[in-house]
Amino acid sequence: MRAVQYATVGEPPRVVDVATPEPGPGQLLVQVTAAGVCHSDLEVMSWPSDAFPYPLPLTLGHEGAGTVAALGSGVDRVSAGESVLIYGPWGCGVCRACSRGAENYCPRAAELGIRPPGLGNPGALAEFVLVDSQRHVVPLGDLDPVAAVPLTDAGLTPYHAINRARPNLFPGSITVVIGVGGLGHVAVQLLRAMSATTVIALDVREQSRELALRSGAHHALPSDDNAVSAIHELTDGAGANAVFDFVGAQATMDLAARVVGMDAAITLVGIGGGALPVSFASPPFGVRVGTTYWGTRSELVELVELARRGEVDVQVERYDLDEAPSVYERMTSGQIHGRAVIVP
Amino acid sequence: MRAVQYATVGEPPRVVDVATPEPGPGQLLVQVTAAGVCHSDLEVMSWPSDAFPYPLPLTLGHEGAGTVAALGSGVDRVSAGESVLIYGPWGCGVCRACSRGAENYCPRAAELGIRPPGLGNPGALAEFVLVDSQRHVVPLGDLDPVAAVPLTDAGLTPYHAINRARPNLFPGSITVVIGVGGLGHVAVQLLRAMSATTVIALDVREQSRELALRSGAHHALPSDDNAVSAIHELTDGAGANAVFDFVGAQATMDLAARVVGMDAAITLVGIGGGALPVSFASPPFGVRVGTTYWGTRSELVELVELARRGEVDVQVERYDLDEAPSVYERMTSGQIHGRAVIVP
Amino acid sequence: MRAVQYATVGEPPRVVDVATPEPGPGQLLVQVTAAGVCHSDLEVMSWPSDAFPYPLPLTLGHEGAGTVAALGSGVDRVSAGESVLIYGPWGCGVCRACSRGAENYCPRAAELGIRPPGLGNPGALAEFVLVDSQRHVVPLGDLDPVAAVPLTDAGLTPYHAINRARPNLFPGSITVVIGVGGLGHVAVQLLRAMSATTVIALDVREQSRELALRSGAHHALPSDDNAVSAIHELTDGAGANAVFDFVGAQATMDLAARVVGMDAAITLVGIGGGALPVSFASPPFGVRVGTTYWGTRSELVELVELARRGEVDVQVERYDLDEAPSVYERMTSGQIHGRAVIVP
Amino acid sequence: MRAVQYATVGEPPRVVDVATPEPGPGQLLVQVTAAGVCHSDLEVMSWPSDAFPYPLPLTLGHEGAGTVAALGSGVDRVSAGESVLIYGPWGCGVCRACSRGAENYCPRAAELGIRPPGLGNPGALAEFVLVDSQRHVVPLGDLDPVAAVPLTDAGLTPYHAINRARPNLFPGSITVVIGVGGLGHVAVQLLRAMSATTVIALDVREQSRELALRSGAHHALPSDDNAVSAIHELTDGAGANAVFDFVGAQATMDLAARVVGMDAAITLVGIGGGALPVSFASPPFGVRVGTTYWGTRSELVELVELARRGEVDVQVERYDLDEAPSVYERMTSGQIHGRAVIVP
Repeated sequence: MRAVQYATVGEPPRVVDVATPEPGPGQLLVQVTAAGVCHSDLEVMSWPSDAFPYPLPLTLGHEGAGTVAALGSGVDRVSAGESVLIYGPWGCGVCRACSRGAENYCPRAAELGIRPPGLGNPGALAEFVLVDSQRHVVPLGDLDPVAAVPLTDAGLTPYHAINRARPNLFPGSITVVIGVGGLGHVAVQLLRAMSATTVIALDVREQSRELALRSGAHHALPSDDNAVSAIHELTDGAGANAVFDFVGAQATMDLAARVVGMDAAITLVGIGGGALPVSFASPPFGVRVGTTYWGTRSELVELVELARRGEVDVQVERYDLDEAPSVYERMTSGQIHGRAVIVP
Repeated sequence: MRAVQYATVGEPPRVVDVATPEPGPGQLLVQVTAAGVCHSDLEVMSWPSDAFPYPLPLTLGHEGAGTVAALGSGVDRVSAGESVLIYGPWGCGVCRACSRGAENYCPRAAELGIRPPGLGNPGALAEFVLVDSQRHVVPLGDLDPVAAVPLTDAGLTPYHAINRARPNLFPGSITVVIGVGGLGHVAVQLLRAMSATTVIALDVREQSRELALRSGAHHALPSDDNAVSAIHELTDGAGANAVFDFVGAQATMDLAARVVGMDAAITLVGIGGGALPVSFASPPFGVRVGTTYWGTRSELVELVELARRGEVDVQVERYDLDEAPSVYERMTSGQIHGRAVIVP
Repeated sequence: MRAVQYATVGEPPRVVDVATPEPGPGQLLVQVTAAGVCHSDLEVMSWPSDAFPYPLPLTLGHEGAGTVAALGSGVDRVSAGESVLIYGPWGCGVCRACSRGAENYCPRAAELGIRPPGLGNPGALAEFVLVDSQRHVVPLGDLDPVAAVPLTDAGLTPYHAINRARPNLFPGSITVVIGVGGLGHVAVQLLRAMSATTVIALDVREQSRELALRSGAHHALPSDDNAVSAIHELTDGAGANAVFDFVGAQATMDLAARVVGMDAAITLVGIGGGALPVSFASPPFGVRVGTTYWGTRSELVELVELARRGEVDVQVERYDLDEAPSVYERMTSGQIHGRAVIVP
Repeated sequence: MRAVQYATVGEPPRVVDVATPEPGPGQLLVQVTAAGVCHSDLEVMSWPSDAFPYPLPLTLGHEGAGTVAALGSGVDRVSAGESVLIYGPWGCGVCRACSRGAENYCPRAAELGIRPPGLGNPGALAEFVLVDSQRHVVPLGDLDPVAAVPLTDAGLTPYHAINRARPNLFPGSITVVIGVGGLGHVAVQLLRAMSATTVIALDVREQSRELALRSGAHHALPSDDNAVSAIHELTDGAGANAVFDFVGAQATMDLAARVVGMDAAITLVGIGGGALPVSFASPPFGVRVGTTYWGTRSELVELVELARRGEVDVQVERYDLDEAPSVYERMTSGQIHGRAVIVP
């Protein structure tokens, strides 16, 4: 089968021919119907060879949807032919975190060598992908796989971040979303669908602010000093109750600290290299600053239901498998708007 | 191997010889080191044949501990020779409830024919027992299986009930435990270990009130009208914040409604046949009345840690496998004090 | 000033002239701009004289909005001339429940003789009403008092009920609202604004089902046996995750028990005289059944913000103060659609 | 009356004679029976005059207990002669935060000029202190005011910090307390009383480690590199679930980041001047880092109940009012062990 592989550190990924895998006991083989291409792959491919954590060559793609093609022994909850999404942040499945569905925080995964598809294990940018357990697929029903595949990461990551900040998203609260790109515009939609918070979107790009408004934001402002005073005015000086930073650069994290109020939450989602120092001087008392990583199993189940209800609509651009290498190139130069989805 | 089976409705269980099972893909064979005998088996064996829900003969025993003896294909998180507890309320493993560990409330289990060991599937009152998935065992380490096996139900059931009432168990709150038998005395220990609520135990039996005090109850009273006034006095007329009824008879449920205050929780755990009517007239405004069923996977993991710390100590009486039928007889006549544990 | 008083048990309320009250220390005098008329007043006026709990004559009206007219000494957070809503379920203000804003569950109110305006204290169906503390008013800003006054009860009561059931209102969950009248149609709006649950409204009246759909319900069905099978079909047999009964008759509570699934919540809001017995046989395992009473202080603050955002829109009919007695008559005969609001 | 005042920036506080205040409407005059002396006063007295935020002279003392001596008009829930604790972090009382009891995070307090006693308003290091509202006192009953007065800050601050980290304090979790001084040893007691977490105390001082063990810590270790490896060993490499830093120096915050695991909470309580940078590189994924400020009204009510049950026992040293200036001196030179309490 064809697969998009990253073979040599520093060189671009290529489409190659590899053997189609066969499912062992408990595993599933999924024929890929759609695979999302994520900015974080660029981050991975920027790591130096002496610190590269995964075996090479690596088949890319940690967002996958497909049709169940073959079942290993012991698989009894999924049937061949079913359309499914693949849950990516695999854990051991038996520890306390995993037993609550939070495989994304499994403390044993690293030591056991368990890695997500596309991030250590062969990924979904291929004609077929192997899934290690039936608990890692979610039935998709008649949802379009191309539209739905970004839910597995571009949807699940903001969904999880929002879920953790739920106590801050009460009616009358003010939520700031910094960066309205691939994940940020989904965050705006989810905030509107799941809560009655007031959403202020900040982005330097006018096009992104328009996307924010179309996605349901109550306000969309350039992310500059005026935004700080506008937010303080909107909140009578109290500051925002929740801030989600989908950029994560130093400038946006500094901005987050300036617009936030007491007893609020700042969630860092973007991998922009910034750091927010927490001390008694700043941010205000009672603020909690944290990163999140992907999402839980039950959250993906819930998110698929939201999509079924039409409350999440990720902008996608469709490409062939052979175009994947050029998609990464265009992504690097900022030419991809919305989520690029590969259809093998 | 020998197994304790209930073969004919209305007749006592017997020790019989059956074939030792072999684990299929994903399954484990566990050599039983201890199996708890539960009052609820008497309830099951009292059901009439036309309403009996399980295939017969049925190997009894839904509390099991053992040593992993053989692994089906695909089992990779558990090793042969490990000492484990068996999590009983099996679910489908993939739905939203199961993905959060709440297999005890799996809405698909019934339609899929999934049943707990000892309650539809062959149970742990045998030399070996088959476990359907590695996610249904919890490593026991060097804890004594005989002392630990009641954690799987006599411990997990009150632990889960207490966990659901956590918002009511704040410092300064008053918690009433009705019925200090096999589950009730564990509930008292858990309430003391996990919270700073004040525990009032009610039981008609003096011996049980003494057990309550030894288990950490702050007060132990006969469950009569004086208890009602004593609780109202202790709470300045406000009533209790949480009530756990481990008897579940009509008299105890009526008592629960009389001692409870506003915005409190009444949890029905005992299968005593009573019913508590909820209306605007009673119980007080804001009270929530509910049953619970067994517990979640992560709760059993947590409970084992509590036992490792020495904070739970279930009273057990040890018997041979051949004595199991007579244990049920003695249980019927009220001669078992503490949890009867069978050691094959 | 004129006031609508209930003077003699069994006789209809009348408009009378009474002295305008003066605010003592800590109190506020509010000139009423709008007062809601509530079905529960009919319930109160149906009580027999030997069980009537309040002193007579009683000025009715527990939903009030107005302009601050005079301030007692020590009032410093509210200014004369401000437009406010009155929070009704007054508590002692200093106990644990009150210190969390849950004055609706204050365990000391009864013994201290603290009663809500219109339900023991002189109410808002008058030209002026006395409020006992500045903490019991919420600034209304430029919201229309006539449209907003039902928020104080017809809005706050379902808001509080929904808030308590939040863990059950996850995306993908199914919520059933029984009875789409004055409170029920607000509940439907709030459920849609605050969560991503799927709302199924049940009502015997076609007009009410239409109101449900206009309020945002996903489905509106007659509340009969077909509804039971429809809900089981929609949930793949799992049953609803949350049920709110705004009727509270025996028939609707029985219906609630039949449509609900495991680990769900049934909330009884309507004062229809029914009772739902909770036992191991029914409702399903893990269901919690409870009443609620009115709402908390912070919830009213939040709800006013929701109204400011345009997410709650209570249907009102406007009447003069002199018409109040006839409004109660028309209410008795079912001729009031929406909330009747008196404008003195 | 005599009062301990800080009159000139840079000079030590002095005992002076000032007029005894009289309570205005809604206020209470409290005759001080005990007042705690807090390290944070040293911090305040170190601020330069151009940045000093409070009017001078300032009567010190933000931990106060006393007997109600006189009541302003409108005070009806407290009686003269009652023994009370004073809740310190006063807010406006009417906003959303205050209506939930979280006056410590009142967003309006600053603009309204509302300040705690001893931190802007005249404090409790005097014979009498004025309390602005009856909601700011908690009945003490027959508890010893000298033993109880540190609950108002040295108790309430860790209680609040622990409460916010409750989801991380499950049975089987590992909690690290850094710095076992005045607040830290109370934190250890509270963690043991309120949860079933395993407590590891870290302190460079042997005497403090002994205090930690007497307070109930399971382990007490020097806060060095060995602690890091010990914690990783105890947690099978997973890291701690909760860290409370009662020092707040750069070294301890760095230590916190090194011992913590994924999805954990780091709470900064100590005012040691350090800062912990939060980025994708560190701390681990899902960790939330935050400060807390004092505590809520209902938390102080709960804490008094814990003290009544004997579960909190703050080490105190008793001094006369005249000794207060020298107590600050001895505090500066590290000669105070436990909480210094002034008895006027």
